[in-house]
Amino acid sequence: VAGAAGADLDALLAGARAGRPRDIGRLVSLVENGSSELPDLLGSLGPLTGHANVIGVTGPPGVGKSTTTSALVGALRARGDRVAVVAVDPSSPFSGGALLGDRIRMSEHATDPGVFIRSVASRGHLGGLAATTPQVVRVLDAVGFDAVVVETVGVGQSEVEVAASADTTVVLVAPGMGDGVQAAKAGILEVADVLVVNKADLPGADATVRELRQALTHRPKGDWTPPIVRTVASAGTGIDDLVDAIVERRDWLRRTGRLGERRAARSRAELRALVVEAALSRIDDRQLDALAAQVADAELDVYSAVRLLLGD
Amino acid sequence: VAGAAGADLDALLAGARAGRPRDIGRLVSLVENGSSELPDLLGSLGPLTGHANVIGVTGPPGVGKSTTTSALVGALRARGDRVAVVAVDPSSPFSGGALLGDRIRMSEHATDPGVFIRSVASRGHLGGLAATTPQVVRVLDAVGFDAVVVETVGVGQSEVEVAASADTTVVLVAPGMGDGVQAAKAGILEVADVLVVNKADLPGADATVRELRQALTHRPKGDWTPPIVRTVASAGTGIDDLVDAIVERRDWLRRTGRLGERRAARSRAELRALVVEAALSRIDDRQLDALAAQVADAELDVYSAVRLLLGD
Repeated sequence: VAGAAGADLDALLAGARAGRPRDIGRLVSLVENGSSELPDLLGSLGPLTGHANVIGVTGPPGVGKSTTTSALVGALRARGDRVAVVAVDPSSPFSGGALLGDRIRMSEHATDPGVFIRSVASRGHLGGLAATTPQVVRVLDAVGFDAVVVETVGVGQSEVEVAASADTTVVLVAPGMGDGVQAAKAGILEVADVLVVNKADLPGADATVRELRQALTHRPKGDWTPPIVRTVASAGTGIDDLVDAIVERRDWLRRTGRLGERRAARSRAELRALVVEAALSRIDDRQLDALAAQVADAELDVYSAVRLLLGD
Repeated sequence: VAGAAGADLDALLAGARAGRPRDIGRLVSLVENGSSELPDLLGSLGPLTGHANVIGVTGPPGVGKSTTTSALVGALRARGDRVAVVAVDPSSPFSGGALLGDRIRMSEHATDPGVFIRSVASRGHLGGLAATTPQVVRVLDAVGFDAVVVETVGVGQSEVEVAASADTTVVLVAPGMGDGVQAAKAGILEVADVLVVNKADLPGADATVRELRQALTHRPKGDWTPPIVRTVASAGTGIDDLVDAIVERRDWLRRTGRLGERRAARSRAELRALVVEAALSRIDDRQLDALAAQVADAELDVYSAVRLLLGD
């Protein structure tokens, strides 16, 4: 990387690759803040990527995503993997307190230098989540993590897309949450590579497994059939089975050459999101406000306003 | 509207404004399909808008959104309002069956010519949901509905934004779903203008109301304090209170001049989404595929790829 800022970047990169949490954190912040150094940074990181196993974990609120992620991190660490977690949390002014529970659950890993945890805000402008998260994953891959776990609330459009762009997407459901039907409604069954019935000690777990198995028969024919794993993440039960399923999936991706396809699809989504970011960054906010007021007052139609915004 | 296609459009518009369901449906389809006639169409509709009360209904899966929406439609109809419902459903290949239940619940209104119901797919490309839904609402407003109810799964970024761009956003929670904490996690409390504790006959309803009241004390100070309404939508209980709360909110918006602000904000979001659509429509898909493969193989960095895509 060239120049004076380049020298700083090189030092930062070296520190991050040596595993220094503070340098890793600063690198990730550069990405999140849309730093002007990003092109240089990601350009020099590119050749270093491709090692990490990228795992998406998603499911409806209350299904136990954070607990499962934490247990999964523990199991991966026990195998000797260095693990990064990207937690996509809705950035609510109220969430400070509400999210504390998650942070406490994850805090068993807080002092482990082999684990890096970062929360990413999911609210904000269009495309933000879809644009930022893949780049954060890219950076964490490049600095040497063996596994990157991306945890999202798996209901919204952007959130599901982000989780689904992992190498392996783990979808959690739990008994008594409207079961598989709600998962199907949320549109997350079709992106599942591994299905987890968490809280499998609750009544209705068998019915949920049956429902999921039934739903999978409607899945478009492919050569990978998502296994259904039962877990009680809070007790650590079934987590080894989950790791086995993820490892098996990874082997299958490599064996069949699908890993490359999956990653090309991820790059495709990332490029589209960056085009969106570029388009939005070119909007003049004051002009936007003025035109929006005119549209709201029916003095101007939306398409004329868009043409004015685009300078066409 | 000028031209031969324009004559068809005029007939379509006249039919829709006369309340013919088939014409309304065709108009909405033009918007959803991004018809080339949209600029003309929305241009001629603009001056007709501003009458409808736009109501967002959102909340986590399983909270009873469809049942509540259906009961709300019934109550608004009883007041003599013509009502349109825009249901934003994740478009899953599995959802056909799963969604049938909702459609059946709504079907009590299926033969009522004063009610129009349309499902909008929430999956798909970035910005799709945010771009399409406000325009569908605009059309339904212009053709004369008194109320337009927009129902979304209230967890994802796009979904929450769409619901929150209504005049009044109704946020549903239910006892025993992780309560207010999950609502806060989902980032939907802060967009609530009216809070509903549905399934209020279940144990824990009082605790949920208390939690919500507590959470509201953290809300940034404003002059509107969201009321908390208890409902059992499946039995019709509390729906009149919900309607009262919505009417009170609408009166407040008009009295304080906030209605204009809210609508300008909605136009602003719509314009941004249309700029995104325009940017994406200019991407050459074949070039995108080729560049994505190069990025995935680390032969090219993402920013160089974006510059090539943008033709900069």
